[in-house]
Amino acid sequence: MESLFVLAKKKFQNIDMVVNNAGHSSSADWERTVAVNCQGIVLGTLLGFKYLGADGGGKGGTIVNISSVSGLAPCHANPVFSASKHFTIGFSRSVGTEYFFKRTNVKVLTLCPGITHTEHHVRNVEGLPEFPDLGKELKKLLECNRSKQSPEDVATALMQILEDGENGSVWVAEAKEVYKCVLPDRCTFVPPKKDPCKKAEPPKQEPLKQDPCKKAEAPKK
Amino acid sequence: MESLFVLAKKKFQNIDMVVNNAGHSSSADWERTVAVNCQGIVLGTLLGFKYLGADGGGKGGTIVNISSVSGLAPCHANPVFSASKHFTIGFSRSVGTEYFFKRTNVKVLTLCPGITHTEHHVRNVEGLPEFPDLGKELKKLLECNRSKQSPEDVATALMQILEDGENGSVWVAEAKEVYKCVLPDRCTFVPPKKDPCKKAEPPKQEPLKQDPCKKAEAPKK
Repeated sequence: MESLFVLAKKKFQNIDMVVNNAGHSSSADWERTVAVNCQGIVLGTLLGFKYLGADGGGKGGTIVNISSVSGLAPCHANPVFSASKHFTIGFSRSVGTEYFFKRTNVKVLTLCPGITHTEHHVRNVEGLPEFPDLGKELKKLLECNRSKQSPEDVATALMQILEDGENGSVWVAEAKEVYKCVLPDRCTFVPPKKDPCKKAEPPKQEPLKQDPCKKAEAPKK
Repeated sequence: MESLFVLAKKKFQNIDMVVNNAGHSSSADWERTVAVNCQGIVLGTLLGFKYLGADGGGKGGTIVNISSVSGLAPCHANPVFSASKHFTIGFSRSVGTEYFFKRTNVKVLTLCPGITHTEHHVRNVEGLPEFPDLGKELKKLLECNRSKQSPEDVATALMQILEDGENGSVWVAEAKEVYKCVLPDRCTFVPPKKDPCKKAEPPKQEPLKQDPCKKAEAPKK
């Protein structure tokens, strides 16, 4: 992959941005999905830091890693793909931080497209080896959620976030709409605790009210 | 890995549970981290379905996939590890669903330990190849958040969730406390929208107040 960066640098003198968009979504060939979607994202990002990085002779710039709305929620019909897109978000948010920006002047954004009409989705609908009928589930899911956007819509979203996106931010481009994800802090995942210092108040005894909607029962004979 | 399942089935006649605990956390050798933590989890889970699954002669059971609190939030000091633990949560929640349970009678749980005192953490503190001083960041992070629990505490948590955990649930075991994660639905990640039907009110004109903190300027000479 590095030869591509060398070629681009040679041709354009300077590289301003990298879009790590290559992806694989077949469950039948899930090892390839992990290799392309996880290892590919890490490698592409590290090379981006190297060739764009102000610390290595570059001028800084932006890396956009393409995840998916499946990276924001589980997807039973395509579990390895969904997992790999969770990976992308976790990685991009980890390196889209001050430590890396200070050294490279490169910001890292994540874009999560919703279902988009591409050849890719039409082809890769096989299930996991042990669950071959999972492919049908995925097909059903894709048919029920008809693509409302084209690859061009996603490209437009990408141009927009290049302008607006701050380092580490995560964006959704779905059904032609673009918005920045508000990802909650993990301390909010804790279930609400009972305050151990607070004594339980005795329940208030309200006077019994007659239910105005309840019909009077007929007197028993 | 399959030979281990064959061996266990031969020895115990039946397998009730699988804990996918093997992990790697070195950033210097990040390809191995992806291989062990991502591909390992998928393979271990698929073999779990095969050997425990009621559809393949098993009696059903439970698979526990070990993630980390780093799978619930980004971690700049160990980005590939954090990403791989996001992967584990995304994958386990995707297969901890009705589709898989109906076919196998196997439930899938995720356990996310907080910092735990293990040999593993003491050894693997190298940075990414391009950022060798990242290791120092990780060391600092681990030192600031001194381990408050032992591997035995995590094992106790695991026994507890085996009892209580419903299919697809995600649990945290941190500082000797165990709780079930309340993971928000992705529709809550959307920023609050302005009501397009509501007309913008004109800003209220407040009477100008004198700033009591502002010193009177000395008259210009």
